[in-house]
Formats: sequence, C-alpha cells, structure tokens
Amino acid sequence: MSTLPQDPWLLTPGPLTTSAATKEAMLHDWGSRDATFIETNARVRESLLKIANASSTHVCVPVQGSGTFAVEATLGTLIPKDGKALVVINGAYGQRMVKILKYAGRASVVYETAEDIPPDPDKLESMLSDDPSITHVLAVHCETTSGILNPIQAIADVCQKLKRSLIIDAMSAFGAIELDSTKVYFDAVMASSNKCLEGVPGMGFALIRQSVLEGCAGNAHALSLDLYDQWVAMEKNAQWRFTPPTHVIVAFDAAIEQFFAAGGVEGRFKRYSENGRILIDGMRALGFKTLLSDNLQAPIIITFEMPADPNFVFETFYDRLKDQGYVIYPGKLTVAPSFRIGCIGALDKEHMHGALAVIKSVLEDMNVRDGQPKAA
Amino acid sequence: MSTLPQDPWLLTPGPLTTSAATKEAMLHDWGSRDATFIETNARVRESLLKIANASSTHVCVPVQGSGTFAVEATLGTLIPKDGKALVVINGAYGQRMVKILKYAGRASVVYETAEDIPPDPDKLESMLSDDPSITHVLAVHCETTSGILNPIQAIADVCQKLKRSLIIDAMSAFGAIELDSTKVYFDAVMASSNKCLEGVPGMGFALIRQSVLEGCAGNAHALSLDLYDQWVAMEKNAQWRFTPPTHVIVAFDAAIEQFFAAGGVEGRFKRYSENGRILIDGMRALGFKTLLSDNLQAPIIITFEMPADPNFVFETFYDRLKDQGYVIYPGKLTVAPSFRIGCIGALDKEHMHGALAVIKSVLEDMNVRDGQPKAA
Repeated sequence: MSTLPQDPWLLTPGPLTTSAATKEAMLHDWGSRDATFIETNARVRESLLKIANASSTHVCVPVQGSGTFAVEATLGTLIPKDGKALVVINGAYGQRMVKILKYAGRASVVYETAEDIPPDPDKLESMLSDDPSITHVLAVHCETTSGILNPIQAIADVCQKLKRSLIIDAMSAFGAIELDSTKVYFDAVMASSNKCLEGVPGMGFALIRQSVLEGCAGNAHALSLDLYDQWVAMEKNAQWRFTPPTHVIVAFDAAIEQFFAAGGVEGRFKRYSENGRILIDGMRALGFKTLLSDNLQAPIIITFEMPADPNFVFETFYDRLKDQGYVIYPGKLTVAPSFRIGCIGALDKEHMHGALAVIKSVLEDMNVRDGQPKAA
Repeated sequence: MSTLPQDPWLLTPGPLTTSAATKEAMLHDWGSRDATFIETNARVRESLLKIANASSTHVCVPVQGSGTFAVEATLGTLIPKDGKALVVINGAYGQRMVKILKYAGRASVVYETAEDIPPDPDKLESMLSDDPSITHVLAVHCETTSGILNPIQAIADVCQKLKRSLIIDAMSAFGAIELDSTKVYFDAVMASSNKCLEGVPGMGFALIRQSVLEGCAGNAHALSLDLYDQWVAMEKNAQWRFTPPTHVIVAFDAAIEQFFAAGGVEGRFKRYSENGRILIDGMRALGFKTLLSDNLQAPIIITFEMPADPNFVFETFYDRLKDQGYVIYPGKLTVAPSFRIGCIGALDKEHMHGALAVIKSVLEDMNVRDGQPKAA
C-alpha cells in the first residue's frame, strides 16, 4: 500500500506507530472464553492498575471501542442521574465530556479557559465552594488539542479537600506522565490501548475506586457502556460480557510487557521528553513557533502555529512529509491556525531527527523561507 | 502459548478462526486520517452494502466495539424516544435487545417463543394489528443461542404490510445466509466483523435505509453510539468521529476481499452448509442429538443436548478437545443442558472430520458409551 520500505512513521496523537512484536502478537486466533485468553486479559487488567499504583484501591474495567467509549462509559456509570458535574475545559476533549453528559442527561457546569491556559485551582475551589450541588469534577490530564499539561495534582487536592469525586481523562498521558493514585486522589481515570502504552486501537479502560464502583449499579445510560455491569460480570467469570477485541487485547498485553521492560512510566517519560525536546528545538531552529511555553508543554504532542509565509500550504506540506515517510497531524485549535506533531509511539530520537531533516528539505522545496507565524 | 503446531481451531460462534492473510493484514500501522486508510474504510462500507444488495437504498455505518455495540447503537439511533418496539424473541440475543431498550428508555412489548420454536408470522401480524402504537419490530435472523434460523422473509412481509419499521439482528447470519434488501424489506440490519465475514473482532456495523436515518438526529441515548452523528461525520470527511480500530478494519477489508473471491454469500453458505452437514451426521452417528430438527437449523452453530451417560463431564470433554486442537462452546439454553459446536470461520470439511475424529477418541478415553441424551 506504500512505496516506502516501511510504513510511514506516525507522528500523531494516535493511532501510533507500534513495535513489530506488538503487531506480531495478533498473528493468532483466540477463543474469548478460553483459559489462555482469560489469563492474558487478567494480566492486562492487573498491569494497568500497577502503572497507576492503584492495585489495592481501584479496579480496572476495560471496554470495547475507542478512548471516547471509555470516557462515556465511566461518566455514565459513575455520575448518578441526579449528580452534577463540573467540567474543567481547555480544549476539545473537555468539550466532548460536556457533550457526553448532555446525551446521558446529567447536569453540568463548566470552568473553561483558553486552549493555552491551564485552569486555576483557586478558581476551581471557589466554584466548588459556591455550589455544593456539584458532585463530580471532570478534568483532562494532557489536553491533546494543544498538548498542554494540566495541573492534575492541584485539581485533585482541591477535590479531595472539598469532597468531590474526581474523574480524570488521561487518554494521551497515561503511562508516560506519572499518575500515582496514592498522591493524586482520584475516583476514576480513563485511557486507551493506543496512546502512550503503544498498543493498537480498539479498547479503552477505566481504573475505578472499588468502593465507589460498588455503589454504581443502575446508573449507566447504555448497556454496552455499563462499567458496573462489565465489572461484576468480569469478576464473576473473568470474561467480557460481549465479544472482546481479542487481537487488540493480546497486542496490548505484548505492548505492556515491552513498556515494563523499557522502564515503565519513567522510561517512557524519558524517551518522549527527549523526542519532544529534539522536535521543539529543531522546529524552532527552522523558525516555527510553539503554541505553548515549555513549562506548559507535555511531551506528547506539540502544537506549532501556522507559518505566515504564503508559500506554506499545509496540505502540500503534509502530503510531502507523508511521501517521505512521516505522518503529522492537523491542528484542532480554535484560537489560532496550527498543526501538530506527536512525539509518542514506538519512535525515538532517530525518528525525530529524521522527521526534522525531511521537514527542512520539504520547506526548501516549497520555497518557504522560515516557519515564523504572523506577528501577533 | 500452545504446544500445538498451530492455534486450536475455533468451533464457536466467534471470535472465529481467521485466515493467515486476514491476520497478516494487521502487520502495519495506519494514520486514521490518512488517504490509504480512508480508502480502505470506504471500500469496506461499500462492500457491506453490496452483500445485502442495498447500495442504492441504504448506507453502511460502522461502529467501534462488539456486535452488541452495533445493535445498541442502531436501536438507540432509529427508535425515537416516543417509539415503541415489538421484540421477537427465541433466545438470548432477542432478550438482550429488550435489555438495551430498557437502558435507552424505549417502550417495548415482546413476542416470545421457546428457544427451539420459530415465531409465527400470523401471530406477529395480529399483535401488530392490535397495537398501532408499535412503531418498530426487532428480530434476530439466526439466534446464536440455539442456532435456529428465523423466518425473516415472512416477518419482513408482515412489517411491510402493516407499515412498521423492521430492524434485523443478523449478527451470526450476515454474509452466509442470503439477506437481499430488495426481497426482504428492512430499515436496518446489524452485524459484526468477526462472524461469517471472518474478520477479527472489534467493530460492528449497521446497514440503514438512508431515508430513515436522515430523520434520526437527536434520537441516540449515547454519544459513542449515535449512528446518525457517526454517519453525518463520515459522509463529511470520510473519517470516523473517534479513533477507529485501524488494524481490525484493515483485517476486515482483507477478509471481505477473500469473501468475494470465494463466491460471496453463495460460496460461504455452501461451505458452512457442508461443514454443518458433516458435523451433524457425524455427531448423530456417535449418538448425539441435535436440539433442532434439520429444517430449523442454520448452518452456523449446532446445539447438541448433553449426553445422559454419567461418564460424560462437559468440562473434561471441552478441555480434552482443546488439548487436541478444537475449541467448542458451552450451551446457553434455558430449556435443556446442552453444548454448541460452530461450523463458521476459516474452516472446511477437513476441520469438521478432524473434530469428529478427536471427539470420537475423547469419548472412548472418557468411557462414554454414546452421546444419547436422557429420554424426554
């Protein structure tokens, strides 16, 4: 399907480039009720809890589908019909949680900042103090829209102080940015198979405080998305309620094994940070401007402002990079025209240097003098 | 993971044994917004419509997750909040649709027969005539619980005559048992990647009459399961709203290519029918009794009654078959103790003869005289 010797490298927020070992794990077929598969599934669930240091307090409930399915399932299962959520928003994924709550018929209020501004914990505290009817706080760890890292520890501290249940969408951070449940007090965190843990897409999961989940029977707004029911059934016979994506799960198991072998969260953070550093430095040297200052930037995906040079046409830039083996990602910002380059997946500094070399040569071909955006 | 030279053959209702070519298609990574993947996705959607001869009237809307996700998404999207469904039930999958309707808050009535009894179209007609508030009829084409083939043509004719919208769960029949939209009048049919089309599990789909779907904005009870929204978004930019299971879709594309190359529905029906014939004849020769008479039996999965011989312990039987390379399936009947053997997946007569030889030798080892169930 490609004239390249290998697949293009995916410098995107996902699906990502995965290792050969992860893909090769899918070269088998498994019965979903069979002992071998059941063991694999149990191992994946236990490993995910370990990553968040949550084995003694939380349970891992996987769900078929994309990350959004896991988010929607968790919100619907944990927030009771008469609950009220405060959604902390600085991008599309915060917005999406509000949309989910509307479908599910749950009351919500919003604390929104611009896409390049982190939420202020003091402001959150005063909003919660002013409205005791707010039962849950929903926050995004790393907002993939911009790549911003939100102050999850401070948010969690406020929620714990004011006794509100915190649910974290850690989709693009889980496994790469530390989230230790004994430090950050949360009732649930959601992520998926195909972000920083470098599996293939097809399943999401939530780590949910068991004492909370036990009280959640009857909350869910959809059978497929009922994580209480999914958990109870899986505890009973170790099987999924409905056909699991067997190949995706076994690939995830292989990916998690590689994750631990490469030093776990610490190892992944180090590699992604190095990737991000090379990318940002290299792009700045070409005149590009990052949306975020370095102190707000997560080493996950970098947003660059669109260059002012009229010779720069994003579609051409994108296509030429792809032809030379590097897939980047369009922007999703409302504040400014932009594009994004990811630094996650089974990629390292060589791939980042390779991408920069191709970007430099494509810019020359396009006769783009430099990547500088319009002056503000 | 196995001491066998190859994976055990899966004689189950799914996940199934898939071909090497189907699995090997997953040895790549794709960007979900990239042209190559978008083409593959479009080709899968078009092919699925072709299989039901529905390209000019229906649209194909895929959804992440298992078949149940596709069923729930279709019911929630098509049945308005003030609609009322009549569910035709003779097994667990009919029951599951009732459960889904309860989650979604849709009114329903039930026409239920025993697991080995097909519904009577005259009875359905009188129920619909008596209750004009019924807007939708939900029926299962082949009930995997027993393997029974329901009279879908007669059900569709009644619905068309009385102007009720028919939604068909064809999960375990689609692709193997003809369902031609120009003969069987339906508004929607749901199936999944990992049944008779022999892909890997991880996505479902619905073929929905376009003129009906156009009126379905705002019906769905969950964002992830909103097929109207999914369809509108996919028509706009050819992309999935939320991360698609890329590897599963590309494997599905490969599986569908093989499906057409092997003669489409006709070819598959022939192979599965031969598989079923060999299995039923062989098991009867060993003294086993099928739940269903041959005229009710779909060539998908066969239910056998549990033998009366006290030496027959199902768990032992199951484990020994698995050790020798054949995975069968427990029963799900409420009417009688039973087990099931599937005849679908990338398997042919050699596998059926192989399974029978192993069953015979395992029965001898277990000192089971014959497979005869208790006399009724």
